[in-house]
Amino acid sequence: MDAYTPTPRTQVKRLAKRAVYDKTQVHSILDAGYFCHVGFVVDGQPYVIPTGYARVGDRIYIHGSAASRMLRTLEEGVEVCVTVTLVDGFVLARSAFHHSMNYRSVVVLGKARPVTDPDEKLEAMRSFTNHVVPGRWDEVRKPTAQELKSTTVLALPLEEVSAKVRTGMPIDDEEDYALPIWAGVVPIRTKVGEPLPDGRVLPGVPAFDRARFRSRSNEMG
Amino acid sequence: MDAYTPTPRTQVKRLAKRAVYDKTQVHSILDAGYFCHVGFVVDGQPYVIPTGYARVGDRIYIHGSAASRMLRTLEEGVEVCVTVTLVDGFVLARSAFHHSMNYRSVVVLGKARPVTDPDEKLEAMRSFTNHVVPGRWDEVRKPTAQELKSTTVLALPLEEVSAKVRTGMPIDDEEDYALPIWAGVVPIRTKVGEPLPDGRVLPGVPAFDRARFRSRSNEMG
Repeated sequence: MDAYTPTPRTQVKRLAKRAVYDKTQVHSILDAGYFCHVGFVVDGQPYVIPTGYARVGDRIYIHGSAASRMLRTLEEGVEVCVTVTLVDGFVLARSAFHHSMNYRSVVVLGKARPVTDPDEKLEAMRSFTNHVVPGRWDEVRKPTAQELKSTTVLALPLEEVSAKVRTGMPIDDEEDYALPIWAGVVPIRTKVGEPLPDGRVLPGVPAFDRARFRSRSNEMG
Repeated sequence: MDAYTPTPRTQVKRLAKRAVYDKTQVHSILDAGYFCHVGFVVDGQPYVIPTGYARVGDRIYIHGSAASRMLRTLEEGVEVCVTVTLVDGFVLARSAFHHSMNYRSVVVLGKARPVTDPDEKLEAMRSFTNHVVPGRWDEVRKPTAQELKSTTVLALPLEEVSAKVRTGMPIDDEEDYALPIWAGVVPIRTKVGEPLPDGRVLPGVPAFDRARFRSRSNEMG
Protein backbone atom coordinates (compact mmCIF):
# COMPACT_ATOMS: atom_id res chain seq x y z
CA MET A 1 0.00 0.00 0.00
CA ASP A 2 1.46 3.31 -1.06
CA ALA A 3 0.79 5.77 1.75
CA TYR A 4 1.71 9.20 3.07
CA THR A 5 3.92 9.10 6.13
CA PRO A 6 2.28 10.77 9.10
CA THR A 7 4.31 13.59 10.62
CA PRO A 8 3.77 15.06 14.08
CA ARG A 9 1.61 17.64 12.30
CA THR A 10 -0.55 15.22 10.30
CA GLN A 11 -0.81 12.33 12.74
CA VAL A 12 -4.53 12.14 13.47
CA LYS A 13 -4.85 12.17 17.24
CA ARG A 14 -8.57 12.38 17.85
CA LEU A 15 -10.69 9.50 16.54
CA ALA A 16 -7.59 7.92 15.06
CA LYS A 17 -9.65 5.03 13.68
CA ARG A 18 -10.94 7.45 11.05
CA ALA A 19 -7.45 8.29 9.79
CA VAL A 20 -6.51 7.51 6.20
CA TYR A 21 -3.04 7.91 4.70
CA ASP A 22 -3.40 5.62 1.69
CA LYS A 23 -2.52 7.59 -1.43
CA THR A 24 -5.20 6.06 -3.65
CA GLN A 25 -7.92 6.96 -1.16
CA VAL A 26 -6.54 10.45 -0.57
CA HIS A 27 -6.37 11.09 -4.31
CA SER A 28 -9.92 9.85 -4.85
CA ILE A 29 -11.23 12.31 -2.24
CA LEU A 30 -9.28 15.15 -3.81
CA ASP A 31 -10.55 14.23 -7.26
CA ALA A 32 -14.17 14.08 -6.06
CA GLY A 33 -14.22 17.56 -4.51
CA TYR A 34 -15.04 20.69 -6.44
CA PHE A 35 -13.52 23.32 -4.17
CA CYS A 36 -11.16 23.52 -1.23
CA HIS A 37 -10.63 25.80 1.74
CA VAL A 38 -7.19 27.40 1.87
CA GLY A 39 -5.82 28.52 5.21
CA PHE A 40 -2.98 31.02 5.51
CA VAL A 41 -1.70 33.44 8.12
CA VAL A 42 -1.27 37.21 7.92
CA ASP A 43 0.03 39.05 11.01
CA GLY A 44 -0.85 36.09 13.21
CA GLN A 45 -4.47 35.99 12.03
CA PRO A 46 -5.59 32.84 10.18
CA TYR A 47 -7.72 33.27 7.07
CA VAL A 48 -9.75 30.50 5.45
CA ILE A 49 -10.93 31.10 1.89
CA PRO A 50 -12.83 28.81 -0.49
CA THR A 51 -11.29 28.43 -3.91
CA GLY A 52 -10.95 26.09 -6.88
CA TYR A 53 -8.23 23.49 -7.17
CA ALA A 54 -7.07 20.48 -9.13
CA ARG A 55 -4.77 17.55 -8.44
CA VAL A 56 -2.05 16.76 -10.95
CA GLY A 57 -0.08 13.71 -9.85
CA ASP A 58 1.47 14.31 -6.45
CA ARG A 59 0.71 18.01 -6.42
CA ILE A 60 -2.31 20.24 -6.15
CA TYR A 61 -2.83 23.60 -7.78
CA ILE A 62 -4.96 26.30 -6.25
CA HIS A 63 -5.99 29.67 -7.57
CA GLY A 64 -8.31 32.54 -6.86
CA SER A 65 -8.92 35.23 -4.36
CA ALA A 66 -6.93 33.66 -1.56
CA ALA A 67 -3.79 34.00 -3.54
CA SER A 68 -3.69 37.73 -3.91
CA ARG A 69 -3.58 38.51 -0.20
CA MET A 70 -1.20 35.63 0.42
CA LEU A 71 1.18 36.64 -2.30
CA ARG A 72 1.32 40.20 -1.18
CA THR A 73 2.72 38.73 2.01
CA LEU A 74 5.26 36.22 0.79
CA GLU A 75 6.73 35.97 -2.65
CA GLU A 76 8.96 32.99 -2.08
CA GLY A 77 6.29 30.64 -0.81
CA VAL A 78 3.72 30.62 1.93
CA GLU A 79 2.74 28.12 4.61
CA VAL A 80 -0.78 26.95 3.79
CA CYS A 81 -3.27 24.31 4.74
CA VAL A 82 -5.56 23.10 1.99
CA THR A 83 -8.61 21.16 3.15
CA VAL A 84 -11.17 19.36 0.98
CA THR A 85 -14.32 18.12 2.68
CA LEU A 86 -17.12 16.00 1.24
CA VAL A 87 -20.16 15.48 3.41
CA ASP A 88 -21.96 12.21 2.77
CA GLY A 89 -24.64 11.93 5.41
CA PHE A 90 -26.18 12.99 8.68
CA VAL A 91 -25.68 10.44 11.43
CA LEU A 92 -28.64 10.60 13.81
CA ALA A 93 -28.05 8.76 17.05
CA ARG A 94 -30.31 8.12 20.03
CA SER A 95 -28.30 10.52 22.16
CA ALA A 96 -27.42 14.10 21.27
CA PHE A 97 -23.81 13.31 22.10
CA HIS A 98 -23.38 10.63 19.43
CA HIS A 99 -24.84 12.62 16.54
CA SER A 100 -22.26 12.91 13.81
CA MET A 101 -21.69 13.31 10.09
CA ASN A 102 -20.44 10.89 7.52
CA TYR A 103 -17.70 12.67 5.62
CA ARG A 104 -14.44 12.39 3.77
CA SER A 105 -11.83 15.10 4.28
CA VAL A 106 -8.23 15.64 3.27
CA VAL A 107 -5.81 18.06 4.92
CA VAL A 108 -2.64 19.06 3.08
CA LEU A 109 0.05 21.06 4.88
CA GLY A 110 3.04 22.68 3.30
CA LYS A 111 4.56 25.59 1.50
CA ALA A 112 2.82 26.72 -1.65
CA ARG A 113 4.93 28.28 -4.35
CA PRO A 114 3.70 30.64 -7.04
CA VAL A 115 3.67 29.03 -10.48
CA THR A 116 5.53 31.34 -12.83
CA ASP A 117 6.47 29.05 -15.72
CA PRO A 118 3.93 29.79 -18.49
CA ASP A 119 3.65 26.16 -19.60
CA GLU A 120 3.05 24.90 -16.07
CA LYS A 121 0.57 27.71 -15.49
CA LEU A 122 -1.37 26.85 -18.62
CA GLU A 123 -1.38 23.18 -17.61
CA ALA A 124 -2.71 24.12 -14.16
CA MET A 125 -5.50 26.17 -15.73
CA ARG A 126 -6.37 23.28 -18.02
CA SER A 127 -6.59 21.11 -14.90
CA PHE A 128 -8.90 23.56 -13.08
CA THR A 129 -11.31 23.56 -16.01
CA ASN A 130 -11.28 19.83 -16.67
CA HIS A 131 -11.44 19.02 -12.95
CA VAL A 132 -14.96 20.46 -12.93
CA VAL A 133 -16.11 19.31 -16.38
CA PRO A 134 -13.91 16.70 -18.09
CA GLY A 135 -13.12 17.81 -21.62
CA ARG A 136 -14.33 21.37 -21.14
CA TRP A 137 -10.89 22.85 -21.86
CA ASP A 138 -10.98 21.64 -25.45
CA GLU A 139 -14.31 23.38 -26.07
CA VAL A 140 -13.63 26.86 -24.76
CA ARG A 141 -11.49 29.82 -25.70
CA LYS A 142 -8.06 29.38 -24.15
CA PRO A 143 -6.50 32.05 -21.93
CA THR A 144 -4.74 34.98 -23.55
CA ALA A 145 -1.29 36.05 -22.40
CA GLN A 146 -2.92 38.85 -20.43
CA GLU A 147 -5.37 36.47 -18.76
CA LEU A 148 -2.55 34.13 -17.81
CA LYS A 149 -0.63 37.05 -16.34
CA SER A 150 -3.55 38.17 -14.23
CA THR A 151 -4.19 34.71 -12.82
CA THR A 152 -2.37 33.67 -9.67
CA VAL A 153 -1.70 29.95 -9.39
CA LEU A 154 0.00 28.22 -6.48
CA ALA A 155 1.43 24.70 -6.43
CA LEU A 156 1.50 22.62 -3.26
CA PRO A 157 3.24 19.22 -3.11
CA LEU A 158 1.24 16.33 -1.67
CA GLU A 159 3.77 15.37 0.98
CA GLU A 160 2.36 16.16 4.40
CA VAL A 161 -1.14 14.79 3.99
CA SER A 162 -3.81 13.13 6.08
CA ALA A 163 -7.41 12.21 5.54
CA LYS A 164 -10.30 11.38 7.82
CA VAL A 165 -13.26 9.30 6.78
CA ARG A 166 -16.41 8.42 8.70
CA THR A 167 -18.90 5.99 7.21
CA GLY A 168 -21.71 3.86 8.47
CA MET A 169 -24.35 3.93 11.15
CA PRO A 170 -24.41 5.76 14.50
CA ILE A 171 -22.76 4.04 17.42
CA ASP A 172 -24.94 4.47 20.46
CA ASP A 173 -24.24 3.57 24.05
CA GLU A 174 -25.56 0.07 24.57
CA GLU A 175 -28.28 1.08 27.05
CA ASP A 176 -29.62 3.72 24.64
CA TYR A 177 -30.71 1.09 22.11
CA ALA A 178 -33.67 0.44 24.44
CA LEU A 179 -34.98 3.97 23.78
CA PRO A 180 -37.85 4.42 21.30
CA ILE A 181 -35.91 6.92 19.13
CA TRP A 182 -35.31 6.72 15.39
CA ALA A 183 -31.61 6.41 14.59
CA GLY A 184 -29.73 5.90 11.37
CA VAL A 185 -28.14 7.74 8.47
CA VAL A 186 -29.73 10.32 6.20
CA PRO A 187 -27.61 10.43 3.05
CA ILE A 188 -26.68 13.75 1.47
CA ARG A 189 -26.24 13.80 -2.26
CA THR A 190 -24.98 16.59 -4.44
CA LYS A 191 -27.22 16.70 -7.47
CA VAL A 192 -26.58 18.63 -10.62
CA GLY A 193 -29.72 20.41 -11.82
CA GLU A 194 -30.98 21.16 -15.32
CA PRO A 195 -28.39 23.33 -17.12
CA LEU A 196 -29.65 26.89 -17.68
CA PRO A 197 -28.22 28.46 -20.84
CA ASP A 198 -27.56 32.17 -20.76
CA GLY A 199 -29.59 34.16 -23.29
CA ARG A 200 -26.87 34.27 -25.91
CA VAL A 201 -25.99 30.69 -26.84
CA LEU A 202 -25.85 30.56 -30.65
CA PRO A 203 -28.40 28.49 -32.60
CA GLY A 204 -27.18 24.98 -33.33
CA VAL A 205 -24.99 24.71 -30.23
CA PRO A 206 -25.94 21.42 -28.50
CA ALA A 207 -27.44 21.58 -25.03
CA PHE A 208 -25.04 20.93 -22.17
CA ASP A 209 -25.19 17.36 -20.87
CA ARG A 210 -25.17 17.47 -17.08
CA ALA A 211 -24.06 13.83 -16.96
CA ARG A 212 -20.60 15.21 -17.68
CA PHE A 213 -20.22 16.17 -14.03
CA ARG A 214 -18.58 13.41 -12.09
CA SER A 215 -20.58 11.87 -9.29
CA ARG A 216 -19.08 12.73 -5.93
CA SER A 217 -21.35 10.79 -3.62
CA ASN A 218 -20.39 7.86 -1.51
CA GLU A 219 -22.55 4.80 -2.09
CA MET A 220 -24.32 4.83 1.21
CA GLY A 221 -23.96 8.33 2.61
CA MET B 1 -29.97 48.16 6.99
CA ASP B 2 -28.18 46.58 9.91
CA ALA B 3 -24.72 45.66 8.73
CA TYR B 4 -21.31 44.55 9.92
CA THR B 5 -18.67 47.27 9.68
CA PRO B 6 -15.80 46.23 7.41
CA THR B 7 -12.38 46.33 9.05
CA PRO B 8 -9.06 46.36 7.22
CA ARG B 9 -9.12 42.58 7.72
CA THR B 10 -12.64 41.94 6.39
CA GLN B 11 -12.86 44.59 3.68
CA VAL B 12 -13.32 42.52 0.51
CA LYS B 13 -10.66 43.73 -1.90
CA ARG B 14 -10.94 41.38 -4.83
CA LEU B 15 -14.28 41.35 -6.70
CA ALA B 16 -15.68 43.87 -4.22
CA LYS B 17 -19.03 43.82 -6.00
CA ARG B 18 -19.61 40.40 -4.47
CA ALA B 19 -19.16 41.68 -0.91
CA VAL B 20 -22.05 41.44 1.56
CA TYR B 21 -22.05 42.88 5.08
CA ASP B 22 -25.81 42.96 5.69
CA LYS B 23 -26.53 41.06 8.89
CA THR B 24 -29.74 39.44 7.69
CA GLN B 25 -27.99 38.02 4.63
CA VAL B 26 -24.94 36.91 6.62
CA HIS B 27 -27.15 35.15 9.17
CA SER B 28 -29.18 33.42 6.47
CA ILE B 29 -25.99 31.97 4.95
CA LEU B 30 -24.77 30.81 8.37
CA ASP B 31 -28.16 29.26 9.11
CA ALA B 32 -28.23 27.43 5.76
CA GLY B 33 -24.83 25.74 6.14
CA TYR B 34 -24.33 22.43 7.88
CA PHE B 35 -20.63 22.61 8.67
CA CYS B 36 -17.85 25.17 8.72
CA HIS B 37 -14.10 25.19 8.25
CA VAL B 38 -12.16 26.48 11.25
CA GLY B 39 -8.71 27.96 10.70
CA PHE B 40 -6.20 28.32 13.52
CA VAL B 41 -2.44 28.59 13.85
CA VAL B 42 0.01 26.37 15.73
CA ASP B 43 3.73 27.22 15.57
CA GLY B 44 3.14 29.40 12.51
CA GLN B 45 1.41 26.64 10.57
CA PRO B 46 -2.24 27.22 9.63
CA TYR B 47 -4.67 24.33 10.09
CA VAL B 48 -8.13 24.16 8.52
CA ILE B 49 -10.56 21.63 9.98
CA PRO B 50 -14.21 20.93 9.13
CA THR B 51 -16.56 20.89 12.08
CA GLY B 52 -20.14 21.49 13.15
CA TYR B 53 -21.44 24.85 14.28
CA ALA B 54 -24.58 26.79 15.08
CA ARG B 55 -25.47 30.47 15.21
CA VAL B 56 -27.19 31.82 18.32
CA GLY B 57 -27.97 35.52 17.92
CA ASP B 58 -24.76 37.45 17.28
CA ARG B 59 -22.48 34.57 18.15
CA ILE B 60 -21.50 31.23 16.68
CA TYR B 61 -20.58 28.12 18.54
CA ILE B 62 -18.18 25.53 17.17
CA HIS B 63 -17.13 22.18 18.49
CA GLY B 64 -15.29 19.06 17.55
CA SER B 65 -11.87 17.89 16.63
CA ALA B 66 -10.46 21.30 15.84
CA ALA B 67 -10.88 22.41 19.39
CA SER B 68 -8.66 19.91 21.08
CA ARG B 69 -5.47 20.89 19.29
CA MET B 70 -6.36 24.57 19.53
CA LEU B 71 -7.09 24.44 23.20
CA ARG B 72 -3.92 22.65 24.03
CA THR B 73 -2.26 25.76 22.64
CA LEU B 74 -4.25 28.58 24.19
CA GLU B 75 -6.57 28.35 27.15
CA GLU B 76 -7.60 31.96 27.28
CA GLY B 77 -8.85 32.24 23.71
CA VAL B 78 -7.49 31.63 20.25
CA GLU B 79 -7.46 33.62 17.03
CA VAL B 80 -9.61 31.76 14.55
CA CYS B 81 -11.23 32.16 11.19
CA VAL B 82 -14.54 30.37 10.68
CA THR B 83 -15.69 30.06 7.08
CA VAL B 84 -19.01 28.70 5.82
CA THR B 85 -19.35 28.06 2.10
CA LEU B 86 -22.41 27.04 0.12
CA VAL B 87 -21.89 26.21 -3.53
CA ASP B 88 -24.94 26.88 -5.69
CA GLY B 89 -23.84 26.33 -9.27
CA PHE B 90 -21.15 25.87 -11.87
CA VAL B 91 -20.76 28.91 -14.10
CA LEU B 92 -19.63 27.77 -17.54
CA ALA B 93 -18.39 30.60 -19.70
CA ARG B 94 -17.20 30.68 -23.31
CA SER B 95 -13.62 31.26 -22.18
CA ALA B 96 -11.70 29.18 -19.66
CA PHE B 97 -10.81 32.40 -17.85
CA HIS B 98 -14.38 33.39 -17.03
CA HIS B 99 -15.45 30.04 -15.64
CA SER B 100 -16.65 30.48 -12.08
CA MET B 101 -18.90 29.16 -9.36
CA ASN B 102 -22.06 30.58 -7.88
CA TYR B 103 -21.60 30.49 -4.14
CA ARG B 104 -22.36 32.12 -0.82
CA SER B 105 -19.60 32.28 1.79
CA VAL B 106 -19.15 33.92 5.16
CA VAL B 107 -15.82 34.58 6.86
CA VAL B 108 -15.75 35.33 10.59
CA LEU B 109 -12.53 36.51 12.24
CA GLY B 110 -11.91 36.83 15.91
CA LYS B 111 -10.93 35.26 19.16
CA ALA B 112 -12.83 32.15 20.19
CA ARG B 113 -13.24 31.52 23.90
CA PRO B 114 -13.91 28.14 25.48
CA VAL B 115 -17.44 27.84 26.84
CA THR B 116 -17.16 26.68 30.45
CA ASP B 117 -20.53 27.67 31.93
CA PRO B 118 -22.60 24.45 32.00
CA ASP B 119 -25.85 26.19 31.06
CA GLU B 120 -24.31 27.97 28.07
CA LYS B 121 -22.61 24.74 27.03
CA LEU B 122 -25.85 22.82 27.15
CA GLU B 123 -27.56 25.57 25.16
CA ALA B 124 -24.78 25.39 22.55
CA MET B 125 -25.19 21.63 22.25
CA ARG B 126 -28.93 22.06 21.85
CA SER B 127 -28.17 24.50 19.03
CA PHE B 128 -25.79 22.09 17.27
CA THR B 129 -28.44 19.38 17.26
CA ASN B 130 -31.36 21.56 16.23
CA HIS B 131 -29.27 23.39 13.63
CA VAL B 132 -29.09 20.16 11.66
CA VAL B 133 -32.59 18.83 12.40
CA PRO B 134 -35.03 21.29 13.96
CA GLY B 135 -36.67 19.75 17.02
CA ARG B 136 -34.25 16.84 17.24
CA TRP B 137 -33.00 17.87 20.70
CA ASP B 138 -36.40 17.21 22.25
CA GLU B 139 -36.44 13.66 20.89
CA VAL B 140 -33.05 12.38 21.96
CA ARG B 141 -31.28 11.51 25.15
CA LYS B 142 -29.68 14.65 26.56
CA PRO B 143 -25.97 14.80 27.42
CA THR B 144 -24.80 13.46 30.75
CA ALA B 145 -22.48 15.48 32.96
CA GLN B 146 -19.61 13.35 31.72
CA GLU B 147 -20.52 13.91 28.07
CA LEU B 148 -20.74 17.65 28.64
CA LYS B 149 -17.35 17.59 30.28
CA SER B 150 -15.74 15.75 27.40
CA THR B 151 -17.16 18.12 24.77
CA THR B 152 -15.20 21.20 23.86
CA VAL B 153 -17.29 24.14 22.73
CA LEU B 154 -15.96 27.49 21.57
CA ALA B 155 -17.91 30.72 21.23
CA LEU B 156 -17.00 33.33 18.63
CA PRO B 157 -18.74 36.73 18.47
CA LEU B 158 -20.07 37.83 15.09
CA GLU B 159 -18.23 41.13 14.98
CA GLU B 160 -15.58 41.00 12.30
CA VAL B 161 -17.57 39.41 9.50
CA SER B 162 -17.80 39.53 5.73
CA ALA B 163 -19.60 37.55 3.10
CA LYS B 164 -19.18 37.04 -0.62
CA VAL B 165 -21.98 36.03 -2.93
CA ARG B 166 -21.91 35.27 -6.63
CA THR B 167 -25.16 34.64 -8.47
CA GLY B 168 -26.30 34.64 -12.06
CA MET B 169 -24.94 33.89 -15.47
CA PRO B 170 -21.36 33.94 -16.76
CA ILE B 171 -20.03 37.28 -17.93
CA ASP B 172 -18.07 36.73 -21.10
CA ASP B 173 -15.93 39.14 -23.03
CA GLU B 174 -18.18 40.75 -25.64
CA GLU B 175 -16.37 39.25 -28.64
CA ASP B 176 -16.65 35.74 -27.18
CA TYR B 177 -20.44 35.73 -27.51
CA ALA B 178 -19.88 35.10 -31.23
CA LEU B 179 -18.31 31.70 -30.43
CA PRO B 180 -20.45 28.56 -30.85
CA ILE B 181 -19.92 27.40 -27.25
CA TRP B 182 -22.58 26.48 -24.70
CA ALA B 183 -22.53 28.81 -21.72
CA GLY B 184 -24.73 29.15 -18.68
CA VAL B 185 -25.20 27.89 -15.17
CA VAL B 186 -25.50 24.30 -14.00
CA PRO B 187 -27.20 24.40 -10.59
CA ILE B 188 -25.91 22.28 -7.73
CA ARG B 189 -28.44 21.10 -5.21
CA THR B 190 -27.86 19.28 -1.98
CA LYS B 191 -30.48 16.58 -1.76
CA VAL B 192 -31.30 14.55 1.27
CA GLY B 193 -31.72 10.88 0.42
CA GLU B 194 -34.00 8.24 1.85
CA PRO B 195 -33.28 7.84 5.59
CA LEU B 196 -31.61 4.51 6.38
CA PRO B 197 -32.51 3.21 9.85
CA ASP B 198 -29.86 1.29 11.70
CA GLY B 199 -30.82 -2.27 12.49
CA ARG B 200 -31.99 -1.59 16.02
CA VAL B 201 -34.83 0.92 15.82
CA LEU B 202 -37.61 -0.36 18.09
CA PRO B 203 -40.95 -1.47 16.60
CA GLY B 204 -43.51 1.32 16.53
CA VAL B 205 -40.97 4.15 16.19
CA PRO B 206 -42.12 6.30 13.25
CA ALA B 207 -39.87 6.55 10.20
CA PHE B 208 -37.72 9.66 10.00
CA ASP B 209 -39.17 12.36 7.76
CA ARG B 210 -36.38 13.75 5.61
CA ALA B 211 -38.44 16.89 4.94
CA ARG B 212 -37.25 18.01 8.37
CA PHE B 213 -33.92 19.03 6.88
CA ARG B 214 -33.96 22.65 5.85
CA SER B 215 -33.42 23.36 2.18
CA ARG B 216 -30.11 25.10 1.63
CA SER B 217 -30.28 25.72 -2.10
CA ASN B 218 -30.48 29.08 -3.77
CA GLU B 219 -33.42 29.40 -6.14
CA MET B 220 -31.45 29.49 -9.33
CA GLY B 221 -28.10 27.94 -8.55
